[in-house]
Amino acid sequence: MAVYTSVPEDDLAHFLAGYDIGQALACKGIAEGVENSNFLLRTETGPFILTLYEKRVDRGDLPFFLGLMEHCARNGIRCPLPVRDRTGEALGMLCGRPAAIVTFLDGMSGSRLDAEHCAEAGEALARLHVAARDFPVPRPNALSFSGWDSLAAQAGTRADSVEAGLSALISTTLDDLRGTWPDSLPRGVIHADLFPDNVLFLSGRTPGIIDFYFACTDMLAYDLAICINAWCFDAEHRYDAERGQALISAYDRARPLEADEIAALPVLCRGAALRFLLTRLVDWLSVPEGALVQPKDPREYSRKLEFHRGVSNTADYGWSR
Amino acid sequence: MAVYTSVPEDDLAHFLAGYDIGQALACKGIAEGVENSNFLLRTETGPFILTLYEKRVDRGDLPFFLGLMEHCARNGIRCPLPVRDRTGEALGMLCGRPAAIVTFLDGMSGSRLDAEHCAEAGEALARLHVAARDFPVPRPNALSFSGWDSLAAQAGTRADSVEAGLSALISTTLDDLRGTWPDSLPRGVIHADLFPDNVLFLSGRTPGIIDFYFACTDMLAYDLAICINAWCFDAEHRYDAERGQALISAYDRARPLEADEIAALPVLCRGAALRFLLTRLVDWLSVPEGALVQPKDPREYSRKLEFHRGVSNTADYGWSR
Repeated sequence: MAVYTSVPEDDLAHFLAGYDIGQALACKGIAEGVENSNFLLRTETGPFILTLYEKRVDRGDLPFFLGLMEHCARNGIRCPLPVRDRTGEALGMLCGRPAAIVTFLDGMSGSRLDAEHCAEAGEALARLHVAARDFPVPRPNALSFSGWDSLAAQAGTRADSVEAGLSALISTTLDDLRGTWPDSLPRGVIHADLFPDNVLFLSGRTPGIIDFYFACTDMLAYDLAICINAWCFDAEHRYDAERGQALISAYDRARPLEADEIAALPVLCRGAALRFLLTRLVDWLSVPEGALVQPKDPREYSRKLEFHRGVSNTADYGWSR
Repeated sequence: MAVYTSVPEDDLAHFLAGYDIGQALACKGIAEGVENSNFLLRTETGPFILTLYEKRVDRGDLPFFLGLMEHCARNGIRCPLPVRDRTGEALGMLCGRPAAIVTFLDGMSGSRLDAEHCAEAGEALARLHVAARDFPVPRPNALSFSGWDSLAAQAGTRADSVEAGLSALISTTLDDLRGTWPDSLPRGVIHADLFPDNVLFLSGRTPGIIDFYFACTDMLAYDLAICINAWCFDAEHRYDAERGQALISAYDRARPLEADEIAALPVLCRGAALRFLLTRLVDWLSVPEGALVQPKDPREYSRKLEFHRGVSNTADYGWSR
């Protein structure tokens, strides 16, 4: 939840004068996204999302994100379509910040997840991978394998103040992954953050996908591993094989997994769990005492990591071909 | 800014099944209101605001607020109209909380206020007072004169840790008001919180009024005094006579002030400044160190109070009949 910048109505009017979407009727800050300021903008022509990019987003990456959304939307993915201004630009400046307007997507996040949600998410992820296959711009994944050592070092032994044995779990996992992390699996654009709040369900329609601001180039099956972590555990962080089966098989139907991707899935799931464990841990350790905004609990991901460390065969996820 | 409760989509679907406004297409938490959870709800029939009432709101007051909004909307005020369900109820239960759906109001808060905004606000306030005149339900104002002593006692001498001399300013003002606070001015329903974020401007239309959750029965001219404090000072908290002239004269045109209301205005302005000084001060003193959500600065209102203490005649506000 984040609205960092408020937009004076005359600045907004001036900004919108460069577009062909009519005048603003309303503009409300919404509790969505943690890196940017997001507004639900209603103009004479309909609803839109206005995003102001705050400091944590690298401005050099914005053309990648906006270009990717446009590419995906034009290739049949239900995702926000950046609106270009009269000069053809999708990225402008508002209140001293880079800013963009995208189309509004109907739909609601699933809050009580079942196998059907997971199947829809799995299929949507595979369709995204296929649609984005010929997107020509690369973007390295700063939060993949090569970035984890430095995150682990940032946390150091303070990890044990969060949970006993956590720093050992992290270093053992890192050691294991050094020998097993795959490097020849099919690559492409991945969403890298397809958590339930980034998928908007609407009865009878393809789910909508939002928040492309972690998208990057990496192994496609690693994105599937991120989704398995995000979608297939219950509220007590226990693996739910029915959901896993639904998610993986729906993915596989829309983009058939290769044999080496299937074989690598347990390792990729450990890596994905470690990635979210590490970023949550670093956030957790950097929040001041007494803060009203509580960061997400890293222990959810240490529990998931422990589970994946016990999985040796993809069939243990409840799915096999 | 506040979204305290998240609404699972199946609970929302079940709630909406009791209404005639179609199914939900989207529901986004918005950064509006500090006491309740507010959502911008889009259904098949249009946009609405869904409010879940959190603990700080007295449930017994909700029929007053909703009834008042309905009364005002039906009497020509551009304000949210509560939507009744199929049984005729405007108040329901959602996620274990009292909840209501109201119509969505187009418009945007003025962020760079000028005399024209103030004139529109003054006229809107007067029209609200006239429209609500025959609303039959009374609601005492817990934050009027009789409530200030206990707020002052809560802050006590800790006030001086916020600003040197503040506790003396408060007790001197309270002493002065005890002898001068009027008790025979025209009374009626007042909004009691008509700050700029609660007025939605839209070119060519009457401004919209939102957030009726402090509304109560009190002296009408006290509501005008609250607006003078909220609208007629510049960013450095200096009184702007041009804005004051615009606001008071627009109010007076739509609801002519009586002679004793005019005479009492400086005292009422002191009281209104003290009221917001006290509530901000108590909030300020109760926030934990290092909290990310900063309460509003009470010193804005000690400065305004000092100004009003130097005003002996309403003409000093830039307006006279």
